[in-house]
Amino acid sequence: MKKELLFKHRSIRKFRSTPIPEEMLRDILTAASRASTCGNMQLYSLVVTRDKTIREKLSPCHFNQPMVMQAPCVVTVCADIHRFTMWCGQRDADPAYDNFAWFLNASTDALLAAQNLIIEAEANGLGICVLGTTIYTAGEISNILELPSGVIPLTTVVMGYPDEDPGLTDRLPLNGVVHYEKYVDYTAAEIDELWAEREASEQTRKLLEENDLPNLARIFTERRYVREDNLAISKSYFELLKEKGFFNN
Amino acid sequence: MKKELLFKHRSIRKFRSTPIPEEMLRDILTAASRASTCGNMQLYSLVVTRDKTIREKLSPCHFNQPMVMQAPCVVTVCADIHRFTMWCGQRDADPAYDNFAWFLNASTDALLAAQNLIIEAEANGLGICVLGTTIYTAGEISNILELPSGVIPLTTVVMGYPDEDPGLTDRLPLNGVVHYEKYVDYTAAEIDELWAEREASEQTRKLLEENDLPNLARIFTERRYVREDNLAISKSYFELLKEKGFFNN
Repeated sequence: MKKELLFKHRSIRKFRSTPIPEEMLRDILTAASRASTCGNMQLYSLVVTRDKTIREKLSPCHFNQPMVMQAPCVVTVCADIHRFTMWCGQRDADPAYDNFAWFLNASTDALLAAQNLIIEAEANGLGICVLGTTIYTAGEISNILELPSGVIPLTTVVMGYPDEDPGLTDRLPLNGVVHYEKYVDYTAAEIDELWAEREASEQTRKLLEENDLPNLARIFTERRYVREDNLAISKSYFELLKEKGFFNN
Repeated sequence: MKKELLFKHRSIRKFRSTPIPEEMLRDILTAASRASTCGNMQLYSLVVTRDKTIREKLSPCHFNQPMVMQAPCVVTVCADIHRFTMWCGQRDADPAYDNFAWFLNASTDALLAAQNLIIEAEANGLGICVLGTTIYTAGEISNILELPSGVIPLTTVVMGYPDEDPGLTDRLPLNGVVHYEKYVDYTAAEIDELWAEREASEQTRKLLEENDLPNLARIFTERRYVREDNLAISKSYFELLKEKGFFNN
């Protein structure tokens, strides 16, 4: 693993169809399983889908982004209290993990493992993209992947050999996301400063022209993540959480 | 970064008091900021607490585990929709991110970044421990760190130079957490098999003796994570989510 690996991540959205060698995939999944986990309970499952027919079914759940079919491997990262609960049940123990606290524990486990998976994939020369669409269509994904009660999708990682070589995406200056000692709230001027470079970029200028909007924030609120969708996702995911047994108690 | 780094993680619970050099800390935080993030919104904040007085206040929130005072650096990982919402507000854009979907997006961002922080810390020879206690006392932590509305703690990473050298913790066999193509539910026999090695270990034998309990699962359900606590945490965290404005819509 190269020293600079973590500093060179960029999402890959074009993939070659070359399969990921079995041994490499195993190494990547093992790396995921070594991440920190709450009480060593490993409250997650990684559903690794390579089968084309199932990826075809998953594709509309990710708004038919071509990479779901292009990349040879789609990993649906799930919070999983089912396996641990089964084990407890078989041992005459009373689990009581069908509640929101355990969704939080399981999500934390799952996402730390997911990032290890990502890093190890990249260390092996693969590219990845994280699909935020997962929470939009988590119910449908659950049906396709036959997730039982106690298992819910959180995010999806597509991975494979890159067929593009994009540059790094910009990030906010580090003082935009880091607070020392305690949270020091931003002044309006500081907020302006944090986004200044991005707002002044050529990329933003193009986006504004294409979208006929006066500023970048409105591209987010009026094009990318609009109120109606946000509320629909909040509602459907929360309902699914209940349906999947994360709100029984 | 060594090839084997991800495979060698173990939690460190005893730390030397040696401070983390500024440049190293900056490198670790920068690595965190390079993780994948939803729409490049970076919906998280990392609150880096080194000040002894504030760590003394945080200590009871983590059940006075000595490492909070021993380790020179405590990072509280927070979901943050506040900063992005402020930016939108200052641009005459209507954000609508005060809802559950955005808690999910922000949590995902925050936890992927947290794992990058962990990996880069370990790459620099530091040790870490993830404190699951964070969700038990998230309200109190919010008060101490002065988190505004739209910001909520998810987990905490203590980090510093290790003062112990523990071995690797066991994990379930890989087929315990990985499913191919879709979720293949476990048979009772498979569950038995997944936990067999751990249940047969000398460590488990000692735990059972110390706790006067007949099996390992009951140590989890009757000692470590009991119904009453799980329900109290579920309730208090969910209330805090509403209080912090993640359920306005």
